[in-house]
Amino acid sequence: MAGGEEAQAQARAMDGSSPSLPPRPPPPPPEREGSHHSYDIESMDGGAPWRQHNGNGSSEALLRYDDGGSMREPLLRKRTMNTTSQIAIVGANICPIESLDYEVVENDLFKQDWRSRKKQQIFQYIVLKWSLVLLIGLLTGLVGFFNNLAVENIAGFKLLLTSDLMLNGRYIRAFFVYGGCNLVLAAAAAAICAYIAPAAAGSGIPEVKAYLNGVDAYSILAPSTLFVKIFGSILGVSAGFVLGKEGPMVHTGACIANLLGQGGSRKYRLTCNWLRYFKNDRDRRDLITCGSAAGVAAAFRAPVGGVLFALEEAASWWRSALLWRTFFTTAVVAVVLRALIEFCRSGKCGLFGQGGLIMFDLSSTVVTYSTPDLIAIIVLGIIGGIFGGLFNFLLDKILRVYSIINEKGAPFKILLTITISIITSMCSYGLPWFAACTPCPVDAVEQCPTAGRSGNYKNFQCPAGHYNDLASLFFNTNDDAIRNLFSNGTSNEFQMSSLFIFFTAIYCLGLVTYGVAVPSGLFIPVILAGATYGRIVGTLLGSITDLDPGLFALLGAASFLGGTMRMTVSVCVILLELTNELPMLPLVMLVLLISKTIADNFNKGVYDQIVVMKGLPYMEAHAEPYMRHLVAGDVVSGPLITFSGVEKVGNIVHALRITGHNGFPVVDEPPITEVPELVGLVTRSHLLVLLNSKNFMKGQIKTSGSFVLRRFGAFDFAKPGSGKGLKIQDLDFTDEEMDMYVDLHPITNTSPYTVVETMSLAKAAILFRELGLRHLLVVPKTPDRPPIVGILTRHDFMPEHVHSLFPNLNPHKYHSASMAG
Amino acid sequence: MAGGEEAQAQARAMDGSSPSLPPRPPPPPPEREGSHHSYDIESMDGGAPWRQHNGNGSSEALLRYDDGGSMREPLLRKRTMNTTSQIAIVGANICPIESLDYEVVENDLFKQDWRSRKKQQIFQYIVLKWSLVLLIGLLTGLVGFFNNLAVENIAGFKLLLTSDLMLNGRYIRAFFVYGGCNLVLAAAAAAICAYIAPAAAGSGIPEVKAYLNGVDAYSILAPSTLFVKIFGSILGVSAGFVLGKEGPMVHTGACIANLLGQGGSRKYRLTCNWLRYFKNDRDRRDLITCGSAAGVAAAFRAPVGGVLFALEEAASWWRSALLWRTFFTTAVVAVVLRALIEFCRSGKCGLFGQGGLIMFDLSSTVVTYSTPDLIAIIVLGIIGGIFGGLFNFLLDKILRVYSIINEKGAPFKILLTITISIITSMCSYGLPWFAACTPCPVDAVEQCPTAGRSGNYKNFQCPAGHYNDLASLFFNTNDDAIRNLFSNGTSNEFQMSSLFIFFTAIYCLGLVTYGVAVPSGLFIPVILAGATYGRIVGTLLGSITDLDPGLFALLGAASFLGGTMRMTVSVCVILLELTNELPMLPLVMLVLLISKTIADNFNKGVYDQIVVMKGLPYMEAHAEPYMRHLVAGDVVSGPLITFSGVEKVGNIVHALRITGHNGFPVVDEPPITEVPELVGLVTRSHLLVLLNSKNFMKGQIKTSGSFVLRRFGAFDFAKPGSGKGLKIQDLDFTDEEMDMYVDLHPITNTSPYTVVETMSLAKAAILFRELGLRHLLVVPKTPDRPPIVGILTRHDFMPEHVHSLFPNLNPHKYHSASMAG
Repeated sequence: MAGGEEAQAQARAMDGSSPSLPPRPPPPPPEREGSHHSYDIESMDGGAPWRQHNGNGSSEALLRYDDGGSMREPLLRKRTMNTTSQIAIVGANICPIESLDYEVVENDLFKQDWRSRKKQQIFQYIVLKWSLVLLIGLLTGLVGFFNNLAVENIAGFKLLLTSDLMLNGRYIRAFFVYGGCNLVLAAAAAAICAYIAPAAAGSGIPEVKAYLNGVDAYSILAPSTLFVKIFGSILGVSAGFVLGKEGPMVHTGACIANLLGQGGSRKYRLTCNWLRYFKNDRDRRDLITCGSAAGVAAAFRAPVGGVLFALEEAASWWRSALLWRTFFTTAVVAVVLRALIEFCRSGKCGLFGQGGLIMFDLSSTVVTYSTPDLIAIIVLGIIGGIFGGLFNFLLDKILRVYSIINEKGAPFKILLTITISIITSMCSYGLPWFAACTPCPVDAVEQCPTAGRSGNYKNFQCPAGHYNDLASLFFNTNDDAIRNLFSNGTSNEFQMSSLFIFFTAIYCLGLVTYGVAVPSGLFIPVILAGATYGRIVGTLLGSITDLDPGLFALLGAASFLGGTMRMTVSVCVILLELTNELPMLPLVMLVLLISKTIADNFNKGVYDQIVVMKGLPYMEAHAEPYMRHLVAGDVVSGPLITFSGVEKVGNIVHALRITGHNGFPVVDEPPITEVPELVGLVTRSHLLVLLNSKNFMKGQIKTSGSFVLRRFGAFDFAKPGSGKGLKIQDLDFTDEEMDMYVDLHPITNTSPYTVVETMSLAKAAILFRELGLRHLLVVPKTPDRPPIVGILTRHDFMPEHVHSLFPNLNPHKYHSASMAG
Repeated sequence: MAGGEEAQAQARAMDGSSPSLPPRPPPPPPEREGSHHSYDIESMDGGAPWRQHNGNGSSEALLRYDDGGSMREPLLRKRTMNTTSQIAIVGANICPIESLDYEVVENDLFKQDWRSRKKQQIFQYIVLKWSLVLLIGLLTGLVGFFNNLAVENIAGFKLLLTSDLMLNGRYIRAFFVYGGCNLVLAAAAAAICAYIAPAAAGSGIPEVKAYLNGVDAYSILAPSTLFVKIFGSILGVSAGFVLGKEGPMVHTGACIANLLGQGGSRKYRLTCNWLRYFKNDRDRRDLITCGSAAGVAAAFRAPVGGVLFALEEAASWWRSALLWRTFFTTAVVAVVLRALIEFCRSGKCGLFGQGGLIMFDLSSTVVTYSTPDLIAIIVLGIIGGIFGGLFNFLLDKILRVYSIINEKGAPFKILLTITISIITSMCSYGLPWFAACTPCPVDAVEQCPTAGRSGNYKNFQCPAGHYNDLASLFFNTNDDAIRNLFSNGTSNEFQMSSLFIFFTAIYCLGLVTYGVAVPSGLFIPVILAGATYGRIVGTLLGSITDLDPGLFALLGAASFLGGTMRMTVSVCVILLELTNELPMLPLVMLVLLISKTIADNFNKGVYDQIVVMKGLPYMEAHAEPYMRHLVAGDVVSGPLITFSGVEKVGNIVHALRITGHNGFPVVDEPPITEVPELVGLVTRSHLLVLLNSKNFMKGQIKTSGSFVLRRFGAFDFAKPGSGKGLKIQDLDFTDEEMDMYVDLHPITNTSPYTVVETMSLAKAAILFRELGLRHLLVVPKTPDRPPIVGILTRHDFMPEHVHSLFPNLNPHKYHSASMAG
């Protein structure tokens, strides 16, 4: 065993890490996924030729990087010296993270398992998988419906109560009732979020995206997160915040899938042993992909949109079989929702009317467009893209400020939420007073002023026969406000000034609301602001275009979605499914393409930006161009810890205690073989299971490994649910045991993926990413050296790590090439 | 240099191979992508343990394989002894094929290139790429429109002419005119296909799918194929065959993309040097993916469906950037089509009416469904799945018979086509006579009987005020027939007997038509048969369900599409875009899922089946379960040919001449290094460029390689358009030159992907497939052996190859596990 006693003290500190770890600088040297060893790479001719060429002006290059790179800088970096930290922000919580591993481990146990696998087991597996997928669809559909039902009833009750008071002229009291309801709901949402599961704050899409990219933290998909996500979202939306339930629904779907996949929660005594087949990262990833698709399908009632969202935004790996399974899940969601809505039609669901699940029907209009319309739409797309990019930029700044507040503890989180709630109440109750009362149009299809809780013509403070157009937007649920904006045949319903006030307020409120410690989606604020913007443009251009302002609102929403989220196909299909407006498809596509192209010049998509800011080590599908100038051997670092094929127990225990490494190369050395020879890679979790069995030997002799095969089945080494599993501090060994030996051959993965040290980092990154690896072994180019140079892990490919090693690399010189990918 | 003089004679024969190579058994030993070396694998403990376990009854296992395996057996195998042949059927043509290579070659040239790449070049690249994508969209849209315009005019003229004659009572003459027109059109289509580009026969989707999986043959995307595909498809559809233009449009789009990407055709003097950036397989793959999406978008006027088709069916690799680019292409297609249709609305396009591009409008119906409806739909899905599976089964049998006929030469191809044309004409003109005349419904919305060329109520032989319902289906273009079947509010339009006759005829004609030497799509026959089937079910169940028969026709079409093509999301969206029937979405999804599940129990999707039958070495995304019982070292075979780092010209020339190998490992040996050391992999094409420069040395000394860097740019080694490039027989060397040496280091890919010989074949296959490799080097487990064991290529992973090496592997034992993937 080589290396690393000096890191003992700091590693002890790491041992105590738990999901609720308070934010503190993790200890140098970096805790890493694998163990490393730096060779004298300089002497190799395949080394890094660019270093001689690029040697000039390192400080200047560094300056340039620090200057322009703030968008790519994780928040955590400001607080730690360690750029490859294994902690990240999940929701509003700082957690230790680890990588997921999609590599097939091939060792003796695996072979035994495959040899003995029966047809029956395979059948069981298939049936279980489909049942799980069905269950995910059912549950997500139910939760989605419950969420809507609750929101409609709570928010509806609140609005009705306030309206009643206003009808009686008790305006002040109405405000206090309205504001008070909002405050209580907001405080409740913030409290459960801050005290039960801080990881449930925010949209959750960045976290799910990171999980599906291979980054795990226990709390991302924990049962408590699920609980808070559901109820926090209901409370938050009911509280009248400018936030949506769509993002949280995606996270909810993913949590449901995780809970089902790991066979319930052991903590809450809900386990199921049949699900041992799914105790691996690959099957879990598939289920969670299905879950996130089901979430979108449930949130928007858009089954195809859900599949495409999972494909375009959430998932990092994709295959045809998965497409089918996601499709099945979302179909189930659609059927469940349809059945429940049918059930509610008879009025059994309280205030839940047609309005519950968004479905904007524009279908009455016939769409024909001419050249001036197209020009108007192109302009709309361009400005929408600029607004979208600006939104991302401002959101980044605001989140950085908020994270300082949120870090101070739960009371501060609640306080921040309450502040935003009061501001929101003041805006939504106060601003409509600035709008003049408009007489009801004589040809209105709808009742005017509106009698019920939702509708186009809110009475507010106006006399009978008049309506307050700003109240129709503000003093409503977000869904209803969008419905009003999308409504057509109502060209003159909204005054220009009202639209401007509403746009400004919503754009700003959307920005300041997202970061509070409440489950909050971005779709609704963006659609709201975009639709208002579109309606403004449509009204302004009313003279030169024949398109209805309602259609312009749809296009405006598309332009904002394209400008912030940078999704194309999925947004397009979601909007199509929301509005049932097929003839608009080419226009929506056009607007999306324009706004995405424009906004891509400024910054990244909002979710990507949040992923980076949260410090989640996301592997991009393409390699960054500067990686072509480095070779794999350049970035491996740190002391490499290897084990012998038959290793002393004490050495293993010591290595596991002093480091956080998860993978150790196993090298057979001269007593066993003639020359040092790489056996493979052994993982921490497998070592712990083996050590726990305490089946040790007196001498250093290679065994047949049969005792392992006798004592263990492949499922004993299966991956437990996140945050469970054995830990090294759970194990105790006597001094005698520490002096004994254990044969690692049976549990060593004998076919880890390897790259030669002279391979460019870019090429290694593609291998690492495409195959979803956790460890990538780097082997020497020449055969006369020890058989392993080091290990590459996810963190070694992160720009922060590479730039900390090579500060004179200029990321901007080759920046634009990444756009070409 | 090791190995293989004995293969010289047969390799000479291979040298003369050309795209028009007549079918003949390729010579043993197999021509392969790479060079191989068999080591004594048996002595390694990581070897193949299953061989001891499964050793019993090899002949019985073999029998079982031959018995049940016929669906997986390529056609070619019946005619050759060589299971890893490098020929396959493209269209109706037997061609030599080769693999595409998506690996980044990292050698000195590549490094030089990256170091010197300017911002300006990157900008050029991006602009060019987007311009190309735009052009692909424009051209495919134009071609799609032209196709429709031509078909509508030719077929419309034919139908009008015949109708006129029939109105005058000249029925015999009408038949000869009708049949004669069909015959001439069919013969013309078959003739251009047989004589100009046999590769254009059939749908083209299997070939495009194989190309995007990494299998290339010059003729797949050649300009002549494009020409025949466009005009052959127009002639074939106009000839009244039961075939569609959708598959050919996909192929057309791909051909257009290829032509644009490789900078025009050098043969026809249309080249463009700016496009050198795209002279690599990766960029071409992206463009061709866009092209195939554009094809679907143009064929169905379904932009989102096109993207999803490319994603679900066509492409093997996918990334987010590609999604966006495909989306852009299909948006352009949608805009082009819309503009052209707008232009034609004023009647400038002859007989091209609304009917040109399929768009079935069902939007008048309100869809509500109850439990009996759902049960009816589930039954519909199940039976549809069975019919779909049966279709695939029968199609396989018929194609095998046809291929024997087609092989006999062009005249036989034309004869077969003419025969089928006569049968089709007889059916479509003859069978309506069996239908009774129906009096026109009094409440018909449409004119009855139909006056023009298309419509619901064809008069045919009936007296005035009556219509022949079978003629409305048969005596029409396929698009119009589908429109009639989908029409709603016309419950009693079709008699049950007519529907039965039509269904039987179309199902059989669809089967016998696909294999003829004419560009022919499968979508339309399947939709036609499915819609008829759905309408039959709808009419039968009219008493227990309230759904309109038109909706049942839609669901029936979905069930057949699910049953044959096994696509889910894309078919769903295509049907949605075709019918604008969003409320039907959950039902369509349900039907698709059921029919696909049912049909998957019988056989593979129709395109996958055709790919296998054509002998195209398609790499599946998942590894077959039996591959887990083999290791990489088990399947490498054949003599391994390696070069020294500085190799004698004669040896290289000799190796290139006697083998068809495309990759050679380069090993530095003791004069240059202390121990044998793997330098990397050099490809045939790079060797040829280097040899062509004739810059040889007298002695075996390692150079700095600077002359290569001086004389060549990276673009000199760029991949030329398929079928171009240097060939070894184009080069001549004097005896003096043959005795000289050449330094291979500068052109050797120093970081090829490697796997250890004990890695399971399944794991190696995943690596190979995910990274899109052409060669995968197998290295020894122990360091005391020569540094390379062999090379794995695409053919080594093919089931035929593996089973020829290990006939006692039982593929059925583990078969069902592949469904779990």
